[in-house]
Amino acid sequence: MSEKRKPTAKEQSAAGENLSGKSVAPDLQRFKRVQISPEKLAEKIISGDVVALSQAITLVESTNPAHAENAQSVIEKCLPHANRSVRIGITGVPGAGKSTFIETFGKHLTSVGKKVAVLVVDPSSTISRGSILGDKTRMEELVKDKNAFIRPSPSGNSPGGVARKTRETILLCEACGFDTIIVETVGVGQGETAVHSMVDFFLLLKLAGAGDELQGIKRGIMEMADAIVINKADGDNKKAADKARGEFARALHLYPPKENGWTPKVLTASALENRGITEIWELVESYISETRESGYFRHKRMEQNKYWLVQTIEDRLKMRFYQDENIKRQLDKELLALEKNETTPFAAARKLLELWDR
Amino acid sequence: MSEKRKPTAKEQSAAGENLSGKSVAPDLQRFKRVQISPEKLAEKIISGDVVALSQAITLVESTNPAHAENAQSVIEKCLPHANRSVRIGITGVPGAGKSTFIETFGKHLTSVGKKVAVLVVDPSSTISRGSILGDKTRMEELVKDKNAFIRPSPSGNSPGGVARKTRETILLCEACGFDTIIVETVGVGQGETAVHSMVDFFLLLKLAGAGDELQGIKRGIMEMADAIVINKADGDNKKAADKARGEFARALHLYPPKENGWTPKVLTASALENRGITEIWELVESYISETRESGYFRHKRMEQNKYWLVQTIEDRLKMRFYQDENIKRQLDKELLALEKNETTPFAAARKLLELWDR
Repeated sequence: MSEKRKPTAKEQSAAGENLSGKSVAPDLQRFKRVQISPEKLAEKIISGDVVALSQAITLVESTNPAHAENAQSVIEKCLPHANRSVRIGITGVPGAGKSTFIETFGKHLTSVGKKVAVLVVDPSSTISRGSILGDKTRMEELVKDKNAFIRPSPSGNSPGGVARKTRETILLCEACGFDTIIVETVGVGQGETAVHSMVDFFLLLKLAGAGDELQGIKRGIMEMADAIVINKADGDNKKAADKARGEFARALHLYPPKENGWTPKVLTASALENRGITEIWELVESYISETRESGYFRHKRMEQNKYWLVQTIEDRLKMRFYQDENIKRQLDKELLALEKNETTPFAAARKLLELWDR
Repeated sequence: MSEKRKPTAKEQSAAGENLSGKSVAPDLQRFKRVQISPEKLAEKIISGDVVALSQAITLVESTNPAHAENAQSVIEKCLPHANRSVRIGITGVPGAGKSTFIETFGKHLTSVGKKVAVLVVDPSSTISRGSILGDKTRMEELVKDKNAFIRPSPSGNSPGGVARKTRETILLCEACGFDTIIVETVGVGQGETAVHSMVDFFLLLKLAGAGDELQGIKRGIMEMADAIVINKADGDNKKAADKARGEFARALHLYPPKENGWTPKVLTASALENRGITEIWELVESYISETRESGYFRHKRMEQNKYWLVQTIEDRLKMRFYQDENIKRQLDKELLALEKNETTPFAAARKLLELWDR
C-alpha cells in the first residue's frame, strides 16, 4: 500500500465522498502516529481503550483512501460488539444552552453508572482543531469524567460524508463500551434530519418563552422531536418556561401521533440548577423500554440502516450524473429554457437522460 | 409512426415511466378518436376549445409512446400561452368536505369572472371511468358552469408519473384560458407533497373541533399550508369551529415563518351555507398580489420547475439501478447482512456501487 500516490477515482468512491483535491498531508502524519494493524486497533477498542478509539475515529475521518480501507476493517471487527447502546440526539438553536445541558445531563448519566459518548455534529462548518478545544472547554466537568468521551464533529466536504463518519463513530464508541451515545447538532442547518436518522430518541432543546425565539429553528424539527425540553427554567425565567411548556404541549396535541404511538412530551429543566435532569432521563428510559418491548426499537434501527444504505447509493448516483461535463453543459441550457418557459421540467429531464444514455 | 408495434425501452423511458406491460388497446381506440395533428390541437386549445383540451389531456395521460410524443408537441406549442394563472392546492382528509367546498368556492370564482379548472389528484388509486362520473356528480353545479372545467386524476403506475401528467394538464388548462387552477388531493397519502410543489397557494381544509380528527392528516401537511380553513362551520358546529380556529392560529404561531415571510392564516367557512368563501378568495388574492410584488411568486414557480426537473432525473436514475437484476440479488444479500449487523449501510452501499460500475 503506497502512501504517497494520488488516490484513484475508485478509491475516492470507496471513501464515500469526493476529495476535491484536499491535501492529505496532515492525515498522513496522523496515520504514521496510528500505524498499528486494524486487528490490533479493534481489539484494543473492544477492550475499552479510549486512546485506540480516538485513533480509529481519526482513521474514519481521514480523507486518505488507505485510511478509509483500514477504518472499514476496524469497523467490521468492531461490529459484533456495537449496536448495544441508547442513542440520543439533542438539537437546539445556538444559545439554547446545549453544552451546559449536555454537561449536566452527561454527569447525571455517569453518576447512575452509564458510559457516555458525546459527538458534536455540525455539517455546515469545517471544524478546526480550535473548536475541538472549544467543545472540550464548554463541557469542562464532563471532559474530566473517565466514563465520558467527547468528540467534536468530523469535518467533511459533504453532509453525506459527515453523516457516514458520525454513524461509523457511533459504532466504534459502542464497541468501546459506551452504552449511551449523545449526538449534538445545531437545529438550524441540514444536520438534524441526518441526526434524527441515526438516533433512538430525539430531544429538542428550547428556551423559555414561546414564539419569537422559535424563529431560528428549521421547519419540521418540532415534528421530529420525541421530547421538547424548555431549558433555562430558572430564576426569572421559570414562569415563562412553564407557560411555554403548556403552549408546546397544546401545539403537539394538534399533531398526529407518531408511527410508534408515542406522544412527544414537554418538560422544563434548568441545567444550571440541575433541575429536571433526572426526569428527562427517566422519560428516555421509559421510551426505550416501551419501544424495546413493542419491537419498535429494533425496527427503527433496521429502518435507519436501510435509510443510510439507500441514501448513500442515491447520493453517489446523483453525484456522478451531475458532475458529468456533458450533463453540466446541457443542464445549464435546459435551466435557461425553463426560466423562459420554453420547455417543461419533464421534457428537459428527458433530454438530459437521453444524453446520459449515450 | 407505427401504432401497433411494441414500444422500445427508450420510448418507455421517453414516456417518463414504466409501462409494466399494461395493454395499450384502450388508448389506441382513444387515439383514433383524437386523430388530429398536434399543431391543430394546440391551436384549438389556445382558442379556448375545451373539447380539444380534453383530447390533449387524454394524450398526456396515455401510456402509448406515440401519444406521449404527440402530447409533448401539443404542450410545446401551448407553452407560450401557459403559466398565466393562479394555482391553488386544496387538501383535507376524506369527510372534510372538499367537493362541496370546491363546488362553492369554484362557483364564487366564476361569479367574479374567473375561468376555473379543477383537477383531482389521488396518486394512491388508479382512477376508473366510474370515478370520473363520481367527481362530476359530486360537483354538480360547477360541472354545468361553462367557465369551469373538472377533470379527475390521471391514473398512473407511479406517483412520479401522476405528478408529471398533472403538471402537464395544468399547462394545457392555462393555455386554454383557465386563469384559476384548483388541484384537489386527499391529505393522507403521498400526493400532497407533489401537489404542494405545483401550486402557488396551498390550502388545508379541516373540520370543526381540534384534536382527534387531525389524526388522519399526514405529518408535515400543516407546515405546508398557506391557509387552514375550518370547514363546516355551520349550525351546531359553529362554536367548535371558532374554538378550533383559535387553537390552530396559536399552533401556527409556534412555527417559524415561511421563506417568503407569510404567516399562514386560519379561517372558518361553511360551504353549505356559502359563508366565509369570499374571505378565502380575498386572502388568496392578497397573497398572490403580495408575492407577485415581492418577486416571490415567480421565484417559487422557477424553484418548482427545477424541483420537477431534478425529481424526474433522479427517479429515473434510481429506477434503473434498483431494477437491475444483479443489483437486486446483491441488495437482498446486503439487507440480510444488515439485519444481522454483519455489515454497515456504507460498506453495503460501496459493494453495490462497485457492482454497478462493472
